[in-house]
Amino acid sequence: MSEGTLETIIAAIGPLNESAVEAAEQHLNSLTKPPGSLGKLEEIARQIAGITGEISADLSKRAVIVMAGDHGVCEEGVSAFPAEVTPQMVLNFLAGGAAVNVLARGAGAEVFCVDIGVNADLSHEGLIQCKVRKGTANMTREAAMTREEAVAAIAAGAAIVKDLASKGYRMFATGEMGIGNTTASAALCAVLAEMRVQDAVGLGTGINEERRQHKIDVVERAIALHSPDRRDPIDALAKVGGLEIAGLVGVILGAAAERCPVVVDGFISSAAALVASALSPQSAAFMLGSHLSHEQGHRQLLDVIGLSPIIHLDMRLGEGTGAVLCFPIIDAALRIMREMATFESAGISRG
Amino acid sequence: MSEGTLETIIAAIGPLNESAVEAAEQHLNSLTKPPGSLGKLEEIARQIAGITGEISADLSKRAVIVMAGDHGVCEEGVSAFPAEVTPQMVLNFLAGGAAVNVLARGAGAEVFCVDIGVNADLSHEGLIQCKVRKGTANMTREAAMTREEAVAAIAAGAAIVKDLASKGYRMFATGEMGIGNTTASAALCAVLAEMRVQDAVGLGTGINEERRQHKIDVVERAIALHSPDRRDPIDALAKVGGLEIAGLVGVILGAAAERCPVVVDGFISSAAALVASALSPQSAAFMLGSHLSHEQGHRQLLDVIGLSPIIHLDMRLGEGTGAVLCFPIIDAALRIMREMATFESAGISRG
Repeated sequence: MSEGTLETIIAAIGPLNESAVEAAEQHLNSLTKPPGSLGKLEEIARQIAGITGEISADLSKRAVIVMAGDHGVCEEGVSAFPAEVTPQMVLNFLAGGAAVNVLARGAGAEVFCVDIGVNADLSHEGLIQCKVRKGTANMTREAAMTREEAVAAIAAGAAIVKDLASKGYRMFATGEMGIGNTTASAALCAVLAEMRVQDAVGLGTGINEERRQHKIDVVERAIALHSPDRRDPIDALAKVGGLEIAGLVGVILGAAAERCPVVVDGFISSAAALVASALSPQSAAFMLGSHLSHEQGHRQLLDVIGLSPIIHLDMRLGEGTGAVLCFPIIDAALRIMREMATFESAGISRG
Repeated sequence: MSEGTLETIIAAIGPLNESAVEAAEQHLNSLTKPPGSLGKLEEIARQIAGITGEISADLSKRAVIVMAGDHGVCEEGVSAFPAEVTPQMVLNFLAGGAAVNVLARGAGAEVFCVDIGVNADLSHEGLIQCKVRKGTANMTREAAMTREEAVAAIAAGAAIVKDLASKGYRMFATGEMGIGNTTASAALCAVLAEMRVQDAVGLGTGINEERRQHKIDVVERAIALHSPDRRDPIDALAKVGGLEIAGLVGVILGAAAERCPVVVDGFISSAAALVASALSPQSAAFMLGSHLSHEQGHRQLLDVIGLSPIIHLDMRLGEGTGAVLCFPIIDAALRIMREMATFESAGISRG
């Protein structure tokens, strides 16, 4: 896909439907509760109305898209786990045994696992094959990928969402697997959110403070080598990003173009959301924050994008686990719209 | 019921089952994720194991107990809503139209509504009748209730849980309805948690700052009049508390005595949890925090009890709405224990 096609996807992203937001607000204020007392649950209801155009949309068919890719920067010793874990975990997703599978079953969601850049030959009937390349290059030596590869990975993500939307899926969650991907995400935060590298680099899957200092040095060296253009998100994504991050940028933009809510998982997914909102500021209105990760830097990153985390569980697993946990809360907001009594119907005095 | 019977309930509350906690921890560390990466979801799993003695208990039969009572202090103009809303909302709960009903249906929970002290004659086949008295007295003039009435309300709450536990209910959420009850809760916070009155008094269902200043004055006058004994939680509860708060103290102690987890809702429920943990420090191990309320003072109150809120939605409705929203998260923790693959079963390399 060319960048022209990407422009077409971005051009398809419109504003929220303000009359539906207004109708949702009016309905909320008729319900038997003090105005605004359901807090962000009411915000979610208004946002979903603005996205879908309906005050109580049916979002029961929902998917979590888990993008998997490897990272050449693992050669630098930035992760607590070996790179071979990426393909091993892909097979775990396909077998239904990973945390995201378990939580998705609880939330009525299907898991779609995508090989967007795993450094192994994988074959499984359940796997969506979109391999752009076998892992990124080591960003401390060369660009993680070419600009064309970054665009191709974005396009693949958007195409998957478009296909699923045509099959009736109406809500998406982002998930990922890629040993080394907190390093790439931190680099994107430093470039695109102008965060200090030491604030953006965290402990990932569980390195110690000494290794974190090394990881900071790795990110600083990569940024110094490439000088990514912060006004050109694809340049940053190609030079210091990751294939699964690029794929999730496509998922987010694709969901916005299809007018479907997309729930953003933790630190890595939020780095993808950062890139998506830089490419299309309007896309942010289609995103919902999910959890606040234990990973250092996540709160600042969410603030930059303008997302508010709902669940505070100190999780740091990725895969889409935090996003999927928010599905029941979104369901709750929609159920409130459908089922609550009004002051009038229940004969209750107003304040 | 005498205070001796209350002592019997408290004596039945034991410590967590540490060997079950240890077994849960070992199982969690065998699962395909970095150790600890599911954060507080893992804490919840360990806590439920310690409470129930099983590493993946069946908590599918669960109840939210909504205690309703009126407050004589409403005469002082402390609330944005008239007192008549308490009985009106009880009928709304019984008709299934209130927010807690809607959210409970989404969480597979049943709502049990209890008249512990509504200032109206209510008759409905679905209502649990335990009226101790028709609302509290105005605490700025006399004690809200007698010591005997406070103990009777606690006993009623504990008896309801005991009955439900005998019918197979294994998890409880606290809920309440009572116009004026943030005033009583703030007074309890000031006495038992030694919070400053101006930190404990919030906007309730939606008063303005001027009215909040008046509410602070009301609480200060009540405390000055009665000088509740902060080493005697029942004295404080009787003088400046509420009947529904006392009922919830009983629900919490009763759940702990039955070794069932009890999910504590917002500010008022947390005031009840404060009283319960003062009466029985061991009962705190059976409580789970739920949401962080918009009501000023809730975070400090939770810190005093030692509860950690999971959901940050800026809600301020009560009824048990925040507690019920946490049921799917607790379910998620238990599902992780039952369904996730282990490193060994999935053939995944460890870090």
